[in-house]
Amino acid sequence: MPRVRVVLVGPKNEGNVGAVARAMKNFEVNELVLVDPCILGTEARQRAMHGVDILEAATVVPDLVTAIGDADFIVGTSGIDTDSERRFARIAVSPRDLATKVQEAKGTVALLFGREDFGLLDDELRRCDVLVTIPAAERYPILNLSHAVTILLYELFTARAPARAVRPMSGGEKERLHDAFADLLDTTDYPAHKRARTKIMFRRLIGRAVPSKWEFHALMGVMQRATKRIQRLERKD
Amino acid sequence: MPRVRVVLVGPKNEGNVGAVARAMKNFEVNELVLVDPCILGTEARQRAMHGVDILEAATVVPDLVTAIGDADFIVGTSGIDTDSERRFARIAVSPRDLATKVQEAKGTVALLFGREDFGLLDDELRRCDVLVTIPAAERYPILNLSHAVTILLYELFTARAPARAVRPMSGGEKERLHDAFADLLDTTDYPAHKRARTKIMFRRLIGRAVPSKWEFHALMGVMQRATKRIQRLERKD
Repeated sequence: MPRVRVVLVGPKNEGNVGAVARAMKNFEVNELVLVDPCILGTEARQRAMHGVDILEAATVVPDLVTAIGDADFIVGTSGIDTDSERRFARIAVSPRDLATKVQEAKGTVALLFGREDFGLLDDELRRCDVLVTIPAAERYPILNLSHAVTILLYELFTARAPARAVRPMSGGEKERLHDAFADLLDTTDYPAHKRARTKIMFRRLIGRAVPSKWEFHALMGVMQRATKRIQRLERKD
Repeated sequence: MPRVRVVLVGPKNEGNVGAVARAMKNFEVNELVLVDPCILGTEARQRAMHGVDILEAATVVPDLVTAIGDADFIVGTSGIDTDSERRFARIAVSPRDLATKVQEAKGTVALLFGREDFGLLDDELRRCDVLVTIPAAERYPILNLSHAVTILLYELFTARAPARAVRPMSGGEKERLHDAFADLLDTTDYPAHKRARTKIMFRRLIGRAVPSKWEFHALMGVMQRATKRIQRLERKD
């Protein structure tokens, strides 16, 4: 994975800058560069929460060239996608496609975010290797600055962190579950002509739910208990 | 696509509520319900930007039961995933998996978001059919409230795809299914100290599987048959 640098160009609202620092902390990105920002005070610190160390370590620079520095791959964000392929300067990829590209990159990736009102200017966008646009409502596609940063960092984070998994039941356990279900159908004299399809129904349902080992044991307990209870009562009967 | 309702439970910061309304406007979700919220003033309106109509149309209710109302599928958000499989009540899916499930749902989906400091309480989480956790830094996984809403609505928005042809069971059918499961536990004298968690296990499993109407009827048939068989035999006993 490359290093990721978040560059805010001309942010006007200190609360947004603080909220960006928090989102960076949430998604393990530490390097924040601010180009000609507003004054940062109490509001920025409060909104940063546990990301206040990132806010305090942020570098303030006078222009975009300095902010980009030696970055190897430059990503611009644009709230307005274009319908015209001829306006090539604004043709953008999705955040998810970006995450795939960044995975493959080396060195430092700079993510540029524009001003709250005007975004990135045309000559700033020209500096970028790729543009990304967040899919959103046609009638109101402009996200809050920290929301846009959050979505991009979330996509980068999920692309590199494999989803953590609960231990699923094993294939053997799965078959024992289906055997227990079949036993339950038997002991309840479930209509013969429905049995095959009901077993398949249960198999599909379990296939979609992907039970954990613990859920396997709990479900087994319920079904076996019902089956045994019926069998015991029928012996007395 | 189902209708999506955003439910904020006990929000304490009016700026967050405004920012949530803006994110909803960005991702074309209009129904906002606030449970016992803070007072909403200028800050909320300013942060809502073009989502101010959603903020103004928000319903304020005194408790979660009213907020959920007739919703068919209830999603809880939890900032803390669990390592322990036995803490089943907090086993969660990812926002992306949730988006796939919601695609397949019908009716109304309620997305519940907890308080900025304490999140959703255990008895609120128990009401949920599925829990979702946003993957984030282990050292600081708690996102800002409007950031969490933004990520979920972004995933739902990007996942929109041709609807699945199968009719899913309704919210009412879902509850009948859970009642039938409870009856089965009763008739089998399932150990009292395990009943609550076994019911929640079943609710989560069904929440993840999103059964069709046909699967609902088949499962009901199996459970009711077992319950009645036991009851009939015990009367003879």
